[in-house]
Amino acid sequence: MENVVFTTNNLWMMICTALVFIMHLGFSLLEIGLTRAKNTINILFKNVMILIIGILTYTFVGFSLMYPGADFAGGLFGFANFGLLLPVDGLSPAYADGHYTYYTDFLFQAMFAATAATIVSGAVAERIKLSTFLIFSTIYVGIIYPIAGMWKWGGGFLDELGFYDFAGSTLVHSVGGWAAVISVALLGPRIGKFKDGKISVIQGHSIPLSTVGAFLLWFGWFGFNGGSVLSADPGVTSLVLVTTCISAAAGGLGAFLVSYLRYRDNDLSMILNGVLGGLVGITAGADLMGITDAFLIGLIAGAIIVFSVGALDRMKLDDPVGAISVHLSCGIWGTLAVGIFGSMAGWSQILNQLIGIGAIGLFCVTSSFIILFTLRKTIGLRVTEREEIEGLDTHEHGTTAYTALSVEEG
Amino acid sequence: MENVVFTTNNLWMMICTALVFIMHLGFSLLEIGLTRAKNTINILFKNVMILIIGILTYTFVGFSLMYPGADFAGGLFGFANFGLLLPVDGLSPAYADGHYTYYTDFLFQAMFAATAATIVSGAVAERIKLSTFLIFSTIYVGIIYPIAGMWKWGGGFLDELGFYDFAGSTLVHSVGGWAAVISVALLGPRIGKFKDGKISVIQGHSIPLSTVGAFLLWFGWFGFNGGSVLSADPGVTSLVLVTTCISAAAGGLGAFLVSYLRYRDNDLSMILNGVLGGLVGITAGADLMGITDAFLIGLIAGAIIVFSVGALDRMKLDDPVGAISVHLSCGIWGTLAVGIFGSMAGWSQILNQLIGIGAIGLFCVTSSFIILFTLRKTIGLRVTEREEIEGLDTHEHGTTAYTALSVEEG
Amino acid sequence: MENVVFTTNNLWMMICTALVFIMHLGFSLLEIGLTRAKNTINILFKNVMILIIGILTYTFVGFSLMYPGADFAGGLFGFANFGLLLPVDGLSPAYADGHYTYYTDFLFQAMFAATAATIVSGAVAERIKLSTFLIFSTIYVGIIYPIAGMWKWGGGFLDELGFYDFAGSTLVHSVGGWAAVISVALLGPRIGKFKDGKISVIQGHSIPLSTVGAFLLWFGWFGFNGGSVLSADPGVTSLVLVTTCISAAAGGLGAFLVSYLRYRDNDLSMILNGVLGGLVGITAGADLMGITDAFLIGLIAGAIIVFSVGALDRMKLDDPVGAISVHLSCGIWGTLAVGIFGSMAGWSQILNQLIGIGAIGLFCVTSSFIILFTLRKTIGLRVTEREEIEGLDTHEHGTTAYTALSVEEG
Repeated sequence: MENVVFTTNNLWMMICTALVFIMHLGFSLLEIGLTRAKNTINILFKNVMILIIGILTYTFVGFSLMYPGADFAGGLFGFANFGLLLPVDGLSPAYADGHYTYYTDFLFQAMFAATAATIVSGAVAERIKLSTFLIFSTIYVGIIYPIAGMWKWGGGFLDELGFYDFAGSTLVHSVGGWAAVISVALLGPRIGKFKDGKISVIQGHSIPLSTVGAFLLWFGWFGFNGGSVLSADPGVTSLVLVTTCISAAAGGLGAFLVSYLRYRDNDLSMILNGVLGGLVGITAGADLMGITDAFLIGLIAGAIIVFSVGALDRMKLDDPVGAISVHLSCGIWGTLAVGIFGSMAGWSQILNQLIGIGAIGLFCVTSSFIILFTLRKTIGLRVTEREEIEGLDTHEHGTTAYTALSVEEG
Repeated sequence: MENVVFTTNNLWMMICTALVFIMHLGFSLLEIGLTRAKNTINILFKNVMILIIGILTYTFVGFSLMYPGADFAGGLFGFANFGLLLPVDGLSPAYADGHYTYYTDFLFQAMFAATAATIVSGAVAERIKLSTFLIFSTIYVGIIYPIAGMWKWGGGFLDELGFYDFAGSTLVHSVGGWAAVISVALLGPRIGKFKDGKISVIQGHSIPLSTVGAFLLWFGWFGFNGGSVLSADPGVTSLVLVTTCISAAAGGLGAFLVSYLRYRDNDLSMILNGVLGGLVGITAGADLMGITDAFLIGLIAGAIIVFSVGALDRMKLDDPVGAISVHLSCGIWGTLAVGIFGSMAGWSQILNQLIGIGAIGLFCVTSSFIILFTLRKTIGLRVTEREEIEGLDTHEHGTTAYTALSVEEG
Repeated sequence: MENVVFTTNNLWMMICTALVFIMHLGFSLLEIGLTRAKNTINILFKNVMILIIGILTYTFVGFSLMYPGADFAGGLFGFANFGLLLPVDGLSPAYADGHYTYYTDFLFQAMFAATAATIVSGAVAERIKLSTFLIFSTIYVGIIYPIAGMWKWGGGFLDELGFYDFAGSTLVHSVGGWAAVISVALLGPRIGKFKDGKISVIQGHSIPLSTVGAFLLWFGWFGFNGGSVLSADPGVTSLVLVTTCISAAAGGLGAFLVSYLRYRDNDLSMILNGVLGGLVGITAGADLMGITDAFLIGLIAGAIIVFSVGALDRMKLDDPVGAISVHLSCGIWGTLAVGIFGSMAGWSQILNQLIGIGAIGLFCVTSSFIILFTLRKTIGLRVTEREEIEGLDTHEHGTTAYTALSVEEG
């Protein structure tokens, strides 16, 4: 009996793992679609390598940093051991209350890990040096992300304080978003983005690919949030999927309404980012919200997207794909929403949420800055002007993503 | 024990929900691939908005219209309440015989709802006004679809009469297909489609995207039909997946053979539509058929596709993506097939099926006509000639889907 | 109780079936991306038809050839009956120890069957005659693949000898790979590939599509290997997913490192093939390996990819997509790895593995040669020079995959 429940729970978690996996394709396509054809291979290369690096660093050190064990409860830092060490009962219902095996636990978390660095990838697109990005990502996904995650999900001090983050509005999305802000600030904008005090639109090269990306991210979020229940409990998992989908839809609606009323615009990429904002927004409290809560959280997230994109432009922070607005602005919003809506709402929870947002933010900003500043002083952050103008594909990869393009340039 | 079965059933239904969700990406890609690059954003915009609108209207009114409760059994119309109202036992095995929770029930049905309007999207592509389409879709998906669905799945009069439609050859696909016919008739053909009495081929801009779309639709159909079992019952679900896949394959084969023999043509888009026709065809009776039945239903559906596409052309009904042939022609065929093949075959069942097809058809044709005629008299159905020639992307969305295109036009 | 376990097991197998299904889209996109735009429809047509043919031949003869029943244990060949014949207990836990129903069994295996022929499709791309390919594939997937599979999975002589192949490094991937080698050798290289003793790169037309393909293949491999456990056993399935993902990541890393160190190249398509090589490599022993084993198997597979691609070029075997390196080279490596790493390692197992590799290789090479040689002598293997230069899409399908292309040519 115990074994059957265990099997079903574990099965659900494995499927959710596969769904989170495919989000990496979603990110990749969203990013290349919203950027120029001449940098396509470069962006895909980064995203594929991050997934590879993310899985491998999480195998060797990340999982042990994030879940160091009961001895480090309430703490700041812990480390279990190098590599994966199957516990005696790791494949039996004795592990994790029969919710999944040790291996499923690892793999689900590993798929999450790579996400944080992937978020950065979009924001720094079209101008960062490949080697610099790979080094930064390896450190960020291998060390920074798991330490931040440990503070809550590994039983660290934020967990003890009462901070709540169901599936990672802060622990995943803001962790990526903070690094994106710092990267963008240190890198500077793409050539031509801000000239003579004016903001110019650098159009992406394929809206269809971006749309596929957004759809795959929503699809993957069934696993991202659904799997964060950490069991197949019918009531909680089904509620989570419903709040997730309603918030996503409301996010799209909010972005549509605000961008239409403000700019008389039927802007598809804004709606897609609105959907993603709705997804990020519900992520911190998907298991706590009712239907109306989810609708409002999403609707506001969609509106935030439109305002955030505009504000970043005015601050001359050039984020080609809107990653900061989606993952940081809506990540903060979603984390706060846990204190405003749903079953945990209240002033004391708002305070807890603010502490969590602040602690994680401080840690991520500081560590990103140190890593990136060091890289700037050593190997440099940015490709040369000529490389940027001609495209990173030709210079970093010696080829082009599409043959038609190479013909035109030939 | 009861709880474990419940958890497993609910898990299956949640996965099927995710699979039906991804069909919306399938429709989007199928449609843009088979149409011209200059209308790509417009089509994607419509499909994304339909999904958003579909989920939200279904949340607020649709689910209550479609499943109004036992009091309305045998009736024409009923309404439970605005929004979602979790029943006392909505998350326990007491709900729906332990097949799923109230939330899973809602979300699975919500993903279905948006499908009907999406079907229309393809048929009216490249010439309908965006605002008109959005208003039509909101009414159609929010009110018409759930009322029609209630007649059978909500326990209405067609259910009482003995009409059978397992997963919606009529209730989903024909409901969309009838609206597509009326829309196309009222809209008229695209400029250049029928000139000097000749039918000209307006080539789609990306066969790869259409192919991805068709594959994703087949993939999603694992959930569309598999989930319509409404439980994870091993015997029925596995039979349904087998009949579904065999009919899909046979549909592709049928379209290939007929189009090759008739036109000496190796036409990929015809085969893809043949596969989709096979899927629509098996949908009404996927749980009733044997292997040979499924093969024949699919094979005939594939042949119907080729003839239907030709017939619509001769009737000067311009359906850019073949949506009417796939969803209406094969939807009717599949519904009739329940009386011809499999375990319910017989003259009295054929009669029942005809009554269902006729009743739903009459309701959908009438309501589509009233809505669209009203819209034509008020805000208009169609974009201007100039907008149509230059492309809806530039005029309705102020941009283009691909940058190469904008360069050419610059 | 027995029924619940049965339902859960069967559910897992059905999901894995859907995942293996989507691999066919993965193969299609990988192949078209790595080849030229003018042959895109042709490649998609082949892949769609193979899936259709694969499912239908497996229904009518393949399944019965591959699993002929206990009477043929230890044998070379057997045949149960035409079509599918539901056993008395085929839908109850009495079938297959309660791991799945007869129908699930069939459909999971049917999705595997089409894979072998699909592998060939990539290697022969851009020059094979469509009719020739369809005839070859029908025979290969309908007769050769199931007979080879019977030798191990159907209880044949290789099973008796102790040959081990968990999910088909040899039985699926090498079976396709051997046919690819023979086809390529008999077909000859594409025009322009080897001129004046030099190897020229014929660039693919869309790296994004190839990347989507590789991601979908990895995604599908969750089902390919995960489903090959043939139950939802939590310990084994979760181990298999972990070894699979670690080997895939290590394969990408291996290809990256070797191609960077050897050529100073950041070659995305090499990394993607490295990932696929890692997946093929782990497939024979995914259930036997530890974490380090999986890492090393993948890392070596990634390195093998780089060397194999170079070696085939030097042997003037023109494989446009690297199918032989991925499926044959890494298929052999993965099969041998069962004797080198993990819980079955040992000299006697290496010998068993070599016998299996040799027996399957001999059978596939011989039968491919006979079929293809006969086709060459009758209808011919290769399109005309003019057709090849102008593109197979125009000549075999009368259209082009992209309208921009047709405009250029108009």
